[in-house]
Amino acid sequence: MTRTFNFCAGPAVLPLEVLQQAQAELVDYKGTGMSIMEMSHRGKEYDAVHQEAQANIRKLMNLSDDYAVLFLQGGASMQFAMVPMNFLPAGATADYVNAGSWGSAAVKQARLLGNVNVAAECEKDIPTRVPTAAELKLTPGAAYLHLTSNETISGAQWKTFPKSAAPLICDMSSDILSRPLDYSPFAMVYAGAQKNLGPSGVTLVVVRKDLAAKAAKTIPAMLRYQTHIEADSLYNTPPCFSVYILALTTRWLLKFGVENMFRRNREKAQMLYDAIDASSFYRGTAVKEFRSDMNVTFRLPTVELEDIFCSTASKAGMSQLKGHRSVGGVRASIYNAFPVEGVQALVAFMKDFEKRNG
Amino acid sequence: MTRTFNFCAGPAVLPLEVLQQAQAELVDYKGTGMSIMEMSHRGKEYDAVHQEAQANIRKLMNLSDDYAVLFLQGGASMQFAMVPMNFLPAGATADYVNAGSWGSAAVKQARLLGNVNVAAECEKDIPTRVPTAAELKLTPGAAYLHLTSNETISGAQWKTFPKSAAPLICDMSSDILSRPLDYSPFAMVYAGAQKNLGPSGVTLVVVRKDLAAKAAKTIPAMLRYQTHIEADSLYNTPPCFSVYILALTTRWLLKFGVENMFRRNREKAQMLYDAIDASSFYRGTAVKEFRSDMNVTFRLPTVELEDIFCSTASKAGMSQLKGHRSVGGVRASIYNAFPVEGVQALVAFMKDFEKRNG
Repeated sequence: MTRTFNFCAGPAVLPLEVLQQAQAELVDYKGTGMSIMEMSHRGKEYDAVHQEAQANIRKLMNLSDDYAVLFLQGGASMQFAMVPMNFLPAGATADYVNAGSWGSAAVKQARLLGNVNVAAECEKDIPTRVPTAAELKLTPGAAYLHLTSNETISGAQWKTFPKSAAPLICDMSSDILSRPLDYSPFAMVYAGAQKNLGPSGVTLVVVRKDLAAKAAKTIPAMLRYQTHIEADSLYNTPPCFSVYILALTTRWLLKFGVENMFRRNREKAQMLYDAIDASSFYRGTAVKEFRSDMNVTFRLPTVELEDIFCSTASKAGMSQLKGHRSVGGVRASIYNAFPVEGVQALVAFMKDFEKRNG
Repeated sequence: MTRTFNFCAGPAVLPLEVLQQAQAELVDYKGTGMSIMEMSHRGKEYDAVHQEAQANIRKLMNLSDDYAVLFLQGGASMQFAMVPMNFLPAGATADYVNAGSWGSAAVKQARLLGNVNVAAECEKDIPTRVPTAAELKLTPGAAYLHLTSNETISGAQWKTFPKSAAPLICDMSSDILSRPLDYSPFAMVYAGAQKNLGPSGVTLVVVRKDLAAKAAKTIPAMLRYQTHIEADSLYNTPPCFSVYILALTTRWLLKFGVENMFRRNREKAQMLYDAIDASSFYRGTAVKEFRSDMNVTFRLPTVELEDIFCSTASKAGMSQLKGHRSVGGVRASIYNAFPVEGVQALVAFMKDFEKRNG
């Protein structure tokens, strides 16, 4: 079997050993005569998976008992609604940083539900970037400050996070567990799993219990974090198979270690940025100091060349390099599970493509 | 490999051929060098899966273009909130039938969001049942009438549905596509997939487009049906793997045919009800005319005997027969994919168990 080098921004590449294990036990899970998909979410087999997934996240993020680890549904987009429903009471104001498409989407949903102050706005800046801490216009007594740690589409990433008097809430969908991080300054972190944690269909929510407990009891049960905390994320049937793959993926990451993963991620990204910077044919999309280690975005001299670049790369076994339809260009998404060999292949392809077309 | 006879109420047994196909193509989907879990939800491979899943549902339910077919997340429990958020405006009243735990759960969430009239209440009746059409106390001009077609826990099922001037909305989580049905009287039908449609993590929503279009634009995007209709259920990343298994499961059902499936389901249920009725040792839980074809519930003379019955059956390869923790007793969930041989085995076991313990 030949594995494609899959640069998809999400759902994204998974570790091969995770897929192989899932395949081996898909029909008959550990000799039970049943698939993990066919099992009660309250039975002992699934419970072990659920507990392992939570424990792996706790270890990888080094979380204290002040935090709950939840596996919810609906992706980051559902969190764009749940966050203000739970944490933005009438009369209060929430601060949002809008540094790209996902920050902007979060702002749009929050505005349906309460008062929003956009603390910094650089969504449309070219080159793309996130703001500096000094730029933020924060509201005294804000209900919370919401950030997007990595803008998947623009390829801009927060390298250090601003200090915040208000509870800090962060959408980490596209760079969660790609680097060692002290999570204690965050009141809540959430991430759709389909980039660094597993397949689509499950959303990791890590939330401080004291904050969740304060949300109004009039919020529908499924939309209240407190409901899920009280039920240990088993209030209703969870997305069992997605949680199972998340358990295997985080087990794989624990073996490797987040520090090592970060080192490898930096090396992979640097190889691509070096190739871009060594050339006048390729132009990086993001301001250098905010360049994402997860989504490497760049342009070619013309849109036509970008199209040829992506289609030729695809034929050479490097798929999904086309930039997001809203911005164009080229995007190489190189999450934790993306192999170094794929980056080396892309760098070689870039050099060759420039020679032929530069 | 020995397959366990898996009587779990959900997540439930899946067709073996579906599991085997999923296993065969898990690592390398159709020679792409990628798993279906690793693919863009906007790429051609997943798109074909998505389209097939929708088309299969349309064929199996014989739906006109007046209906949208959506694959959402959060299970029926999320629909308990979304239905009133979309269809119960301030000042209006929604009628709900409460004939069991799930009807009751739907009422509880709707009450957080608007005015609810409980049109019939028989949740606590023993033997368990659904109301007759004549019992319903409907509100003139109600926003909608909400039913639960099959109460999974009590084992009571609507055999024919009441006529309704208000839009008829039905939670069919535990008997969807178990029988031929004219869906044209329904304004909306929804079902968590993990009983008759696939694994957990995806919720089928079939909704009349004209009704969905009327919902307020101030509802957060993820919670508005209209958002998902406009995006053909691809507003954000769907639970791709769960939809893929749903596509395979509905493909399997199309081959068999809903009429044939219904005949087989009736036969399976009748074998168990005959065994119950032929004995004074076993007592059926539901009123005869409302007995569920999906969840066969019964009692033994004592709780101690029920415990021994379930644990002994489990050792004999018949698992998950314990009734729901809220009601006790025995429950045999025998959804579409549950094999006739498993029912035959249970009937034989029941006779033998009675002989030894009666």
